[in-house]
Amino acid sequence: MNFQQVLVNSPQKNEISCFELRQVPIPEVSALPPGFIIVETKYISIDPYNRILLHQGVGFPRSVSVGKVMNGLVAGKIVGSNSPNHAVGEWVFGELTWENFCVCDSAIVQKIPKDYPHPHHYIGVLGICGITAYIGVKEILNLKPGETLVVSAAAGGVGELAVQIGCYIGAKVIGIAGSEEKCKYVKEIGASYCINYKNEKVLESLKLHCPNGIDAYFDNVGGETLENVIDLINRKGRIALCGMISQYGNLADKETTYGVRNLFYLIGKSVKMEGFLMGDFVEKHDEMRKELIQFVQKGMKFKEEFSEGLEQAPKALEKIFKGENKGKSFIRIV
Amino acid sequence: MNFQQVLVNSPQKNEISCFELRQVPIPEVSALPPGFIIVETKYISIDPYNRILLHQGVGFPRSVSVGKVMNGLVAGKIVGSNSPNHAVGEWVFGELTWENFCVCDSAIVQKIPKDYPHPHHYIGVLGICGITAYIGVKEILNLKPGETLVVSAAAGGVGELAVQIGCYIGAKVIGIAGSEEKCKYVKEIGASYCINYKNEKVLESLKLHCPNGIDAYFDNVGGETLENVIDLINRKGRIALCGMISQYGNLADKETTYGVRNLFYLIGKSVKMEGFLMGDFVEKHDEMRKELIQFVQKGMKFKEEFSEGLEQAPKALEKIFKGENKGKSFIRIV
Repeated sequence: MNFQQVLVNSPQKNEISCFELRQVPIPEVSALPPGFIIVETKYISIDPYNRILLHQGVGFPRSVSVGKVMNGLVAGKIVGSNSPNHAVGEWVFGELTWENFCVCDSAIVQKIPKDYPHPHHYIGVLGICGITAYIGVKEILNLKPGETLVVSAAAGGVGELAVQIGCYIGAKVIGIAGSEEKCKYVKEIGASYCINYKNEKVLESLKLHCPNGIDAYFDNVGGETLENVIDLINRKGRIALCGMISQYGNLADKETTYGVRNLFYLIGKSVKMEGFLMGDFVEKHDEMRKELIQFVQKGMKFKEEFSEGLEQAPKALEKIFKGENKGKSFIRIV
Repeated sequence: MNFQQVLVNSPQKNEISCFELRQVPIPEVSALPPGFIIVETKYISIDPYNRILLHQGVGFPRSVSVGKVMNGLVAGKIVGSNSPNHAVGEWVFGELTWENFCVCDSAIVQKIPKDYPHPHHYIGVLGICGITAYIGVKEILNLKPGETLVVSAAAGGVGELAVQIGCYIGAKVIGIAGSEEKCKYVKEIGASYCINYKNEKVLESLKLHCPNGIDAYFDNVGGETLENVIDLINRKGRIALCGMISQYGNLADKETTYGVRNLFYLIGKSVKMEGFLMGDFVEKHDEMRKELIQFVQKGMKFKEEFSEGLEQAPKALEKIFKGENKGKSFIRIV
């Protein structure tokens, strides 16, 4: 059987009831154009990023129109190949679609080593989460030992890794998260403190726990938290804009998105604020992945959560926006 | 006689009636500590920057407290020296104070070549305006031939130079200014078009005149114009935050400053937004100044306006904020 998650209408706020599961024929090997392959989906990475793809006209590459199959990061096995470089049975990963069998140009996937025991890592801790955290902390923030790094959504799939990479570098790391349980975890993985934004005043807590100001901010949430950090950022500070999960329900409606009022401080303090996507550094991914594998071998922590079956994908995405996921979210298809 | 412009209370909005002219003794050479000099002020540069110095706690270096003599860029002649490196009669410039005779450590001033015919250029087209424009366009925006550059406050002291440096590089330049006369001038100095923000809808005009989007933005105004540009910025676009003149009256009151609501676009489009001060690149100033002198020799245009006498300084500053100045503003003291 081949099923697809098709976008059937525009999502309202964070209610993700906009997908429909459609059955289509399994693609045939004989119909593959030269260089193309069929990938049987084994894992789909479910990320805040997917929510953004549902918005049109917000400047994101690969946004999905109504009527199309949803895009996502997939790890799977090749079950048909018309490419001399790819054999049936190989594991690959890439930006594919939410369906059981993806037909694609083999140029857009990468191989997962045969002997790697956890292929889904290539779309998680060694993929969108790890590489995004690595780029943000190392390439964008250029974090130095002894500096103060703040990470928001610090218990999330990217945030937890940004916290730990920050600690490896020798920075003081302060996290921000949305529950006592999450904050406890963020401290366990190395943060000096983690602010529970549901119980604490973020600005006051940042002042208290960053007595030397903030040198670098890994922003996953945007909005008022970003404004709070800008209030306290140091001269020559850096802000890596990775996500704005607090705003994703509102992106289509500028009237309801939070306006950041203190950008002026960026001038007097000579601060750089930079948005990025993991694809911006694609030529460095292999090198970064090698270092991430070492971090994992040395005991870098990451939580994973699996939902079984393609039909669970919309619900898994919704859970992320309700803050109900307990780690990096995957769909597993047995 | 020695007079000083002293800040006597906090400024309200853009009304600059917060200075008092005080008479003090002329400093005595015999009282100079080793390495110190007395500079007789000949020119003071009056800039939007001076307005920012009147705000406390907005992250700017050198802000001025009530009771203190105002800070500013000064060009003048040494009339007393206790430094082996400085002789009486030499012209120097530096960040000094609004008074007839400044006593300072000679390390904070730089010499103006004897044979340069217009010493005030060193605090104008070769100083705060030229170097700021140069840093913004070349160092921060890294502007490339064929790109589209937008410059706001394009008829201002920095803006007019940013427009022309952009044209020298071979970019398409679109200005934004506040009168037909200013817009006419901006087109005369090379801009493809200049939007009169008082008559035109900025967003619509930008769409019309930047059909390939915006690659680089030299921002002197902040607020809604910045938001408009972010709507249209291209992937890998750059924004140099040089000033936010639209917001300076409001800086002390976050409730009335404009909140920029579309920072999310910076992520999907991988945009860098960076604030800067001319002092950030102080080691490159001499090299930049050499190139600026060549630009001036080749005919780079810049408007200058002189007010006579130290007592005119507050009024000259107020004119800038009312948009009434007709070029880079100086106080001249004969």
